[in-house]
Amino acid sequence: MEELLKNIRQFNEERDWGQFHSPKNLAMSLAIETAEVMEHFQWLTQEQSSNLPTDKKKEISEELADVMIYLVNLADKLNIDLLKAAQMKIEKNRKKYPVTKAKGSYKKYSEL
Amino acid sequence: MEELLKNIRQFNEERDWGQFHSPKNLAMSLAIETAEVMEHFQWLTQEQSSNLPTDKKKEISEELADVMIYLVNLADKLNIDLLKAAQMKIEKNRKKYPVTKAKGSYKKYSEL
Amino acid sequence: MEELLKNIRQFNEERDWGQFHSPKNLAMSLAIETAEVMEHFQWLTQEQSSNLPTDKKKEISEELADVMIYLVNLADKLNIDLLKAAQMKIEKNRKKYPVTKAKGSYKKYSEL
Amino acid sequence: MEELLKNIRQFNEERDWGQFHSPKNLAMSLAIETAEVMEHFQWLTQEQSSNLPTDKKKEISEELADVMIYLVNLADKLNIDLLKAAQMKIEKNRKKYPVTKAKGSYKKYSEL
Repeated sequence: MEELLKNIRQFNEERDWGQFHSPKNLAMSLAIETAEVMEHFQWLTQEQSSNLPTDKKKEISEELADVMIYLVNLADKLNIDLLKAAQMKIEKNRKKYPVTKAKGSYKKYSEL
Repeated sequence: MEELLKNIRQFNEERDWGQFHSPKNLAMSLAIETAEVMEHFQWLTQEQSSNLPTDKKKEISEELADVMIYLVNLADKLNIDLLKAAQMKIEKNRKKYPVTKAKGSYKKYSEL
Repeated sequence: MEELLKNIRQFNEERDWGQFHSPKNLAMSLAIETAEVMEHFQWLTQEQSSNLPTDKKKEISEELADVMIYLVNLADKLNIDLLKAAQMKIEKNRKKYPVTKAKGSYKKYSEL
Repeated sequence: MEELLKNIRQFNEERDWGQFHSPKNLAMSLAIETAEVMEHFQWLTQEQSSNLPTDKKKEISEELADVMIYLVNLADKLNIDLLKAAQMKIEKNRKKYPVTKAKGSYKKYSEL
């Protein structure tokens, strides 16, 4: 993760792209990239989406990489430690969705 | 990252949520969460988006965490190594956007 | 449609909201609202999504309305006639996806 | 609008595409298309987004058309009258965001 962050910073500095990377713009980029991930699954059944051919999986792997790169970049711009934030969110979710209530249910917190 | 992946798997197993987590559904979740990130920046100027008050930054930190959790979960379902995929994509982008051509430009590959 | 456009303009003028409604910001709003539509379908099966309970349908109706309002607003800002643009796109799609080739297939143009 | 709806129905029937058009899938399509709209504005300043060159505007016009087509299609599948829903939402918003409170402010309802 440290290595990835370092590479992303270097890549952008070399190209002088920081000027375009306001948090607002990066949030847009992040949303655009996730739509490209979704595009691969748009017309598939649930089952098909779980049994992708190798070439499709390779394409999706690149799209997930794009999402990851923008996510790390955006978090970096906001001085947010992504791994720590995710760990804390899981802890919060443990309390919000206790096993006894949430098991096997896809309901939202407000509906549990 | 290993630790985060382990926690996400455990969290979902405890709640028996794997049944809802087809790659198709997780791709939707990913897109929904990035829209929630974007919502925070929707009406801000570029400058405001770079100077967020502390409470706003804390809220966004939780949204980025949600994106990260779904991203790791989806990659895991597809047996994709997220860090490796991101590193490989940066290498690919280095060739696609050489410094001499891309420096200071926001143009797409096809327009360079 | 004329009536709707007139009401949207009036609503925004009364609130002096035009200052926030750059095409860039409205494009973000549009994407955010469609994610809210999607949120209602996120964990549903295809069958469940075709058999929504009345209260759910009412909620979704309001989300679709939000998408429509932003779409009309954005098109208006860009001086685009939405109905005409849609009709022209269907004509274009008729040629791009001829019945003989596209019937019963979800493949993209490039894959047909 | 009636004409557009009729054309969309005919287009899809001719291609036997109704089988893919569950509300869940159409909601995904809608979100994907709005991301394609957004892509055009991603790196532009607010000012640039308000002063688009003609060729760019033409491209965006086609993307807005795609959004419109999916939106009408989805509303049709759910038996929702899109124009009526939008008019009702504006009425609701008039009460939610009274001029005296909302004028010149981009704050959310909950923050007013």
